[in-house]
Amino acid sequence: MTETIVDALRAELGAEVVFGNDIPARYHNDWAGMSPVLPLALVRPRSTQQVAATMRICNAFKVPVTPQGGMTGLAGGARPIKGGVALSLDRMNGIEEVDTVMATMTVQAGVPLSTAQKAAEDAGLFLGLDLGARDSCLIGGNLSTNAGGNRVIRYGMAREHVLGLEVVLPDGTVVTSLNKMLKNNAGYDLKQLFIGSEGTLGIITRAVLRLQARPAMLASAFCGCPDFPSLLELLKSARQQMGSALTSFEVMWPSFYDFMTQGLPNLRRAFNEPHGAYVLIESGGRDATENEALLQDVLSSALEAGFVTDAVLPSSERETRDLWAVRESVSEYGKLMGPLTAFDVGLPTSAAGKVADAIEAAMTDRWPDAIALSYGHIGDSNLHVVCHIPSAGQDQPHKEITELVFGFIAAEGGTISAEHGIGLLKKPYLGLSRTPEELALMARIKHAIDPNFILNTGKVF
Amino acid sequence: MTETIVDALRAELGAEVVFGNDIPARYHNDWAGMSPVLPLALVRPRSTQQVAATMRICNAFKVPVTPQGGMTGLAGGARPIKGGVALSLDRMNGIEEVDTVMATMTVQAGVPLSTAQKAAEDAGLFLGLDLGARDSCLIGGNLSTNAGGNRVIRYGMAREHVLGLEVVLPDGTVVTSLNKMLKNNAGYDLKQLFIGSEGTLGIITRAVLRLQARPAMLASAFCGCPDFPSLLELLKSARQQMGSALTSFEVMWPSFYDFMTQGLPNLRRAFNEPHGAYVLIESGGRDATENEALLQDVLSSALEAGFVTDAVLPSSERETRDLWAVRESVSEYGKLMGPLTAFDVGLPTSAAGKVADAIEAAMTDRWPDAIALSYGHIGDSNLHVVCHIPSAGQDQPHKEITELVFGFIAAEGGTISAEHGIGLLKKPYLGLSRTPEELALMARIKHAIDPNFILNTGKVF
Repeated sequence: MTETIVDALRAELGAEVVFGNDIPARYHNDWAGMSPVLPLALVRPRSTQQVAATMRICNAFKVPVTPQGGMTGLAGGARPIKGGVALSLDRMNGIEEVDTVMATMTVQAGVPLSTAQKAAEDAGLFLGLDLGARDSCLIGGNLSTNAGGNRVIRYGMAREHVLGLEVVLPDGTVVTSLNKMLKNNAGYDLKQLFIGSEGTLGIITRAVLRLQARPAMLASAFCGCPDFPSLLELLKSARQQMGSALTSFEVMWPSFYDFMTQGLPNLRRAFNEPHGAYVLIESGGRDATENEALLQDVLSSALEAGFVTDAVLPSSERETRDLWAVRESVSEYGKLMGPLTAFDVGLPTSAAGKVADAIEAAMTDRWPDAIALSYGHIGDSNLHVVCHIPSAGQDQPHKEITELVFGFIAAEGGTISAEHGIGLLKKPYLGLSRTPEELALMARIKHAIDPNFILNTGKVF
Repeated sequence: MTETIVDALRAELGAEVVFGNDIPARYHNDWAGMSPVLPLALVRPRSTQQVAATMRICNAFKVPVTPQGGMTGLAGGARPIKGGVALSLDRMNGIEEVDTVMATMTVQAGVPLSTAQKAAEDAGLFLGLDLGARDSCLIGGNLSTNAGGNRVIRYGMAREHVLGLEVVLPDGTVVTSLNKMLKNNAGYDLKQLFIGSEGTLGIITRAVLRLQARPAMLASAFCGCPDFPSLLELLKSARQQMGSALTSFEVMWPSFYDFMTQGLPNLRRAFNEPHGAYVLIESGGRDATENEALLQDVLSSALEAGFVTDAVLPSSERETRDLWAVRESVSEYGKLMGPLTAFDVGLPTSAAGKVADAIEAAMTDRWPDAIALSYGHIGDSNLHVVCHIPSAGQDQPHKEITELVFGFIAAEGGTISAEHGIGLLKKPYLGLSRTPEELALMARIKHAIDPNFILNTGKVF
């Protein structure tokens, strides 16, 4: 090989590759809050064949490749590498098919989640995956990180929405498994390897997603509970009374709810009185009347038992949006706080209240002006905590905060990442949640599929 | 190493290993109908440590190991190898924990499915996995084959019930990932490798299963439809009207229904008149009254529209059992027919009627006395066909029948195995459902994890 990688990429990809300072800033970093990195090159392929060509070239030159989607990841997984190639799927944004008989949708990796949701709805069906970054995040990123979100309690993580995948391996091999059948046990279920491995084993280029029957108009309710144990009782009775109609159970601690509603003038507080814990419950059953009736039943018995002190059932779409706006204001942290240390830990549900309180207290013990906000998908045992020390300015003690928080999680046998993944940020701590045997097996699989270690190098492990 | 494998196994496992003619016949074969094989040794460990010790010895001697569960598999996956070691999990049959707060159950691989179901129910919860062989099959086999069954339409395949696994690798390494959290994205989701890979990558020793809220008393209905297109209309309206309360939609073609009810005197026909297609619908919603009401609504509109000609709603548990007995009589084929060729193909639901008719017709075209019985989990696009040629006696033309049936399936882009797996029987045909790139990737993973090719050697590929 006499040519350089720059020449090889330019020759093969023409207008689809740019270099150095021609690379727009949005490809320098994701939402994890680390410092941006200018890679050697940015490739934005228009086809699976161009992804494969890029991988063949980078593999030959042993140059690392960082796959990129909507750049909304919170673990640094899509942050490029100096001297490496960033490969963005954002131009592969076609919806190839919606099959209403099989209830499936075939999409390219660069389709924004909200675009896929809308296409499913236009066909009279429903995509169960949903998360706050829906307008920016891309399906390929959702799948490679096994994204969670607001409806896991009902429809599962991203993994459970996938029937088929097309993947490009590090050596450029295209593995097309665009299965559309709900049941298929013919050989290894290869797609499972690529879902949730954060782009370290292959680049997802297309996917077949499973669609659901379209639920009736969803109903939401917002409740104030006296404390966390009461909130757990509310969760139990919601599960029992609503069954699979319980589509969201999103908890906000006062730390989070007060800070966001005080900081963002567009947010409206639902109650005048303060409460010990807040929760958004969503009902997605067979029909709209039933959905409201179910919530009313759950709320009236919870109010009577004292598990809920105050509740709102919105009477318009606008009111519903207002209630959800507080929960979805998480993308505005940065504006309010500057640099932060954010967590998406998981732990046994019954311990979540105690642990969140303990973390918040330990934070202000250590740093008197610390801000620690807690919220989460508590129905799925997933707790989010966001920390910021105003007096530390741009120089947040990320490492010390991380060790403090992970200490409480490890003590409860929890996970350091329930949904965002490991990426770069949590890599040093993976051993807190996984055994040496598990780590060795991951390394063995990585080595078998990416012997040159070029795909999303430096991430996960 | 001066000793033989026999000496090494005897020294390490004592009473847990037997050799040659001391091996009981039930370990010589599974339910696939192939000829039995007497292995060199049978190990029945009592602990994960004994499984690991067995693997270390067999790996050192490079002797193949065939993992065995309840021996109810229909693809030959648990059939031992001459000169190899059969490793049965049937003594590791403890239920270690039912956690009612997290709604999980930790079980050893040798627990029969019905025992696990009962333990969940005793704790006020529900295990969503169910199949006809429930009293004989073991959880380890259910998971390693990614078993399907009757409730996939509502609760998913075996894979979707698994939160954590403990696995012994071919070299004896124990990988313990007994996660209990619904969401955990800390590193690769290793359990996915072992679920559905039919014991070729590791031996499942323990599992954490996800439990569900216990449904109210299920309601069933049995319908006769004029033809398959009407039955598809019934499926559509059942999905729309029942949503997630639709827990089974089990179809029986007249070929199957007539043959079984005529052949087995204990089975009762529900109708005097014959129909074009039969279906069992099950409703598993929030309460018993609602379940019956839902079925009644679906049936009355379907009767009115002419999609259903005749329907029974059983009024007692005994009547319900009688209706299901026909569908569950599949374990009695052998007695009625002798050797048979059975299929668990998958194909687009809309094509299932046409394809089943075409297969039955082609069978009798080729062999005038052919018996071809069709039934299946049509809601999941899974079709079962069972074939027997009486005039061929013990010498069934398995290969020719298989090629005939798979020809129709491949033409529709279907799968040669929707749920039973590939095992030994379907190995020659895997290329009909998977591409060369997929097969190469499977081989790469197999090689990385089992470089000596000792684990379930000869199965899948």
